[in-house]
Amino acid sequence: MEYVRDFRWERGLSVERFTSHLSKVGFQSVNLGRACEIVAKMKREGAKIYLTFTSNMVTSGLRGFFAQLIELGMVDIVVTTVGGLEEDIMRAHNERFAIGSFRADDVALHERGMNRVGNILIRDESYANFEDTITGMLKKIYEKRKRMTSAEFFREVGLLIQDKNSILHQAAVKNVPIFCPAITDGALGFHLFMFQEKHPDFVIDCVRDFKDIVTFTSQDDKKGIICLGGGVSKHYAILSTLISGGMDYAVYMTTATPYSGSMSGASTDEAKSWGKIKDDADAVTVIGDVSITFPLMMCSVLERLSEEGLIRGA
Amino acid sequence: MEYVRDFRWERGLSVERFTSHLSKVGFQSVNLGRACEIVAKMKREGAKIYLTFTSNMVTSGLRGFFAQLIELGMVDIVVTTVGGLEEDIMRAHNERFAIGSFRADDVALHERGMNRVGNILIRDESYANFEDTITGMLKKIYEKRKRMTSAEFFREVGLLIQDKNSILHQAAVKNVPIFCPAITDGALGFHLFMFQEKHPDFVIDCVRDFKDIVTFTSQDDKKGIICLGGGVSKHYAILSTLISGGMDYAVYMTTATPYSGSMSGASTDEAKSWGKIKDDADAVTVIGDVSITFPLMMCSVLERLSEEGLIRGA
Amino acid sequence: MEYVRDFRWERGLSVERFTSHLSKVGFQSVNLGRACEIVAKMKREGAKIYLTFTSNMVTSGLRGFFAQLIELGMVDIVVTTVGGLEEDIMRAHNERFAIGSFRADDVALHERGMNRVGNILIRDESYANFEDTITGMLKKIYEKRKRMTSAEFFREVGLLIQDKNSILHQAAVKNVPIFCPAITDGALGFHLFMFQEKHPDFVIDCVRDFKDIVTFTSQDDKKGIICLGGGVSKHYAILSTLISGGMDYAVYMTTATPYSGSMSGASTDEAKSWGKIKDDADAVTVIGDVSITFPLMMCSVLERLSEEGLIRGA
Amino acid sequence: MEYVRDFRWERGLSVERFTSHLSKVGFQSVNLGRACEIVAKMKREGAKIYLTFTSNMVTSGLRGFFAQLIELGMVDIVVTTVGGLEEDIMRAHNERFAIGSFRADDVALHERGMNRVGNILIRDESYANFEDTITGMLKKIYEKRKRMTSAEFFREVGLLIQDKNSILHQAAVKNVPIFCPAITDGALGFHLFMFQEKHPDFVIDCVRDFKDIVTFTSQDDKKGIICLGGGVSKHYAILSTLISGGMDYAVYMTTATPYSGSMSGASTDEAKSWGKIKDDADAVTVIGDVSITFPLMMCSVLERLSEEGLIRGA
Repeated sequence: MEYVRDFRWERGLSVERFTSHLSKVGFQSVNLGRACEIVAKMKREGAKIYLTFTSNMVTSGLRGFFAQLIELGMVDIVVTTVGGLEEDIMRAHNERFAIGSFRADDVALHERGMNRVGNILIRDESYANFEDTITGMLKKIYEKRKRMTSAEFFREVGLLIQDKNSILHQAAVKNVPIFCPAITDGALGFHLFMFQEKHPDFVIDCVRDFKDIVTFTSQDDKKGIICLGGGVSKHYAILSTLISGGMDYAVYMTTATPYSGSMSGASTDEAKSWGKIKDDADAVTVIGDVSITFPLMMCSVLERLSEEGLIRGA
Repeated sequence: MEYVRDFRWERGLSVERFTSHLSKVGFQSVNLGRACEIVAKMKREGAKIYLTFTSNMVTSGLRGFFAQLIELGMVDIVVTTVGGLEEDIMRAHNERFAIGSFRADDVALHERGMNRVGNILIRDESYANFEDTITGMLKKIYEKRKRMTSAEFFREVGLLIQDKNSILHQAAVKNVPIFCPAITDGALGFHLFMFQEKHPDFVIDCVRDFKDIVTFTSQDDKKGIICLGGGVSKHYAILSTLISGGMDYAVYMTTATPYSGSMSGASTDEAKSWGKIKDDADAVTVIGDVSITFPLMMCSVLERLSEEGLIRGA
Repeated sequence: MEYVRDFRWERGLSVERFTSHLSKVGFQSVNLGRACEIVAKMKREGAKIYLTFTSNMVTSGLRGFFAQLIELGMVDIVVTTVGGLEEDIMRAHNERFAIGSFRADDVALHERGMNRVGNILIRDESYANFEDTITGMLKKIYEKRKRMTSAEFFREVGLLIQDKNSILHQAAVKNVPIFCPAITDGALGFHLFMFQEKHPDFVIDCVRDFKDIVTFTSQDDKKGIICLGGGVSKHYAILSTLISGGMDYAVYMTTATPYSGSMSGASTDEAKSWGKIKDDADAVTVIGDVSITFPLMMCSVLERLSEEGLIRGA
Repeated sequence: MEYVRDFRWERGLSVERFTSHLSKVGFQSVNLGRACEIVAKMKREGAKIYLTFTSNMVTSGLRGFFAQLIELGMVDIVVTTVGGLEEDIMRAHNERFAIGSFRADDVALHERGMNRVGNILIRDESYANFEDTITGMLKKIYEKRKRMTSAEFFREVGLLIQDKNSILHQAAVKNVPIFCPAITDGALGFHLFMFQEKHPDFVIDCVRDFKDIVTFTSQDDKKGIICLGGGVSKHYAILSTLISGGMDYAVYMTTATPYSGSMSGASTDEAKSWGKIKDDADAVTVIGDVSITFPLMMCSVLERLSEEGLIRGA
């Protein structure tokens, strides 16, 4: 039996020590503490680590952190949606996103050519510049192949990017596949369809994409997952291991709750009923804003693992 | 200026009168009342009506209601995720889903071959039977064509189903396209990839799929949308009208809130900053469980429109 | 085993039939259906019915509905916070509350003398008029007694109000006590303290108040509760029956979720661990906006009970 | 204009540096960053600092942290509910609370004499022991005075406690008043009423209690508030400064959202419409679990202030 312990501040408190104290505070703190342990264990046990996130997290400054995690060997496979990958490309080409307000006047923003994602603003101009960038990339990629999966497509994109804070760049360097099951659901969709108009043999093979993620790991691999937010990226990843026995470790971080039966709010428990997570897996759901909970957890884990010599290059 | 009005029950209260009273109660009631007006207006003004929903809503009894709405001509185009469409097929083949509990023991359910979606349970056997059904369908569809979009695929499936409560059946009958941007993100994914292994020229063309939804309406069409829940189905639909000027009418119903910057919680206001919804559109977000708010709104709207003679076949 | 049933609209659908259909839809619909049954059962079994609500619900048009429920004999005891009772008095004196927007400019509202509660607006002038009203009432009440509980105080206030839509009026007429455990937490607080300055023997006896609610029912009474929202009104009511064995029936309706350990989000299950709700009680939590879920449930229940002849005066 | 900055981990990251990085990440991270600045500013500007929290936060390990914050001079006045203060007394008398699960079997817990608050468990025995403790205290306090406010009562209790991690102890030592507007809404309520049965002249004067909080600060004082969660403690505090001009600084931390019009979810903006927070106040709402966000913010603030020599005894 574990007991609640009084939290006390001490001078020079590190993030690692802070999360360790938190694990005895109560409510979501306890879950955060467990999440730190589970992620550290994934790495120690040599599990293949799946990371999924929604586009808005790439809009935020977590983008550079995802890139760093890939660089440090903490991630073996990524599943995400296309909007964030577009923004990763924009940021790699020096576009900047402004910090605004959740209560902005959206009609006024529209008139000023600003697009809002929560309290972050992206200029129309960034999308115009993206068009130039991606059009050039599409030509080069098409020269190499005509039919490819989303993961193959984004690997090619990643090879064309030079930016240490870029998810696509680091993933290409480290051979980490990035799956994007709804690849046309963003500005890229428009550019892909216009490109295909001129090159009808250009095909994104979403069926083989699924085959490739399903066969990415086998029954013999230990598998762990960190799901940030919900949606198709979360489901695509947990579904993909159904045949190879489900996840051994799982951390979900989300603001959604299970009461509407949505995938975004579905808990690690619900996933066990499906066999997407093993019956005896180490699993926890942390409810709260990922822009706070994820870096808090992950910085703590990195500290521990780097002390244990398990982080490459740190 | 409108004022709060005291709500009072009266004997034999109809749903239509009830929602009309609610529109002066306050908080989400007011938004629900506005949503009723906006949806009625969409229809009266002859707008093309987009309906998007997440899979879990098809797991629920809303499935038959979506089918009825298509049958009655209230929907011109659907965007959804694949899990729900699989379940529509199962239900059309006499599978039944049980009502369980949000607090079920998920490991015990797994052992009993029950998969949980919130408080609804689907048997493993239903998935096994689905395999037989879909395998037969895939063969027939492949004989007709080798490369198709998600909407074309599901139209073919719909033509093979006989069930008035089936979304796919009614959509095929009424020529309502069903777009499914992440078509492999479900059990269907496994069957598609195994089918493609034997028939490598079988391709789901997700790029042309996006072209088809983008060109579904033009600048000249009035466009209205009802988004239930969030995720890729919501975004694919609102994105698709960006070039044709954005939505003229929009009703979002969701449990998600905007504070994490997610698509699921993004409000109709945020969509205006992007031009996905017009600056001067009639738009409202209703926060609450869609299994209650959507049928409540829609039954009220159907009542009004049927009195006005605007509902076919009612 | 119960199964999900396809929902279908039919012409002239009544609220009662609608909620009956909903009970087989899934997610919160199912809980709403159960809530209808539990409340109907409370009444059929002759349970003492506790109703608790937060102030904002009285700001809304539910105010008149609460009054009607008391009038119809559906409520035996009320627990609430003071803000709503102030507004009940204002409304009884012809103040009107305007419907505004959740995204209003609050500094501009402040300058215009408008106070916001979600999307409802109350004028400063309404509070100024309230001062005159309550000052007169305080004098009359003080002439009758110097030391009283919150329930005694509000009974006296109710006797001074003539408005069939007033909660305080109907409660006084029907002898339904209204407990208000934090009686100074509103504009009334200022008027009470200024009155006490002049009349130091004027005392609100909050200790006896608790005694009175604890002894309101005994071990022998069947007890049922409808808790709308959380906070002190919810807790005061469920705590009060701890000694007399806990609630036999309980319906919680709230937007809060249990993950932060708050009272507002605490489920009926959690209350069972405390004995505030009996182990074998009929109990359910419905998550969603009370301005929609409560009148929906209650209109359905009233319809059923009036058909059974269990509603006085309907 | 501020821009999103890529977050990157570095070895030995301190909590202070971490929150500083977070302030440029996006979504609630940005709000957390602003909250750190606002709280630091309150202290630097010599504002009177109000701290409000709900009972469940004292059930958690934040209890010791609240005590430490009082000890360090970071808090000038506390408003809370009674349940937490009971638990502070229990913990000071060596009761321990266990860490359990949100999904516990509550009927089984009840049978084992365990009471659940989210994922924290309190034994029946702790309440039995509390009865002995508080009965002794009541006698001593009654000997000193018969009629007192909640703040006076809890000051007397605090003087009888010796535990550096106790909120009541530190508050008594540091002369920080603890207001508890619904003082009978907990186990204490039973003990107060039984005590009053024997000593009818024993009175908790809730009216003067309100006077005392209203006159705690004047127009001339700078005033800042940190509200954790909602309910009566939040409202009592912000209401109390209405006459002295409202708060100059405000940080709200909560899981509740504004869409139901509840006090718990009411934003700092809404409070401005009422004048409870000044029009030009520095104010922010951070949405998320307080067991994570509050210690994160506060440890960062303490670090900065201690470097500036503004923390007594650190």
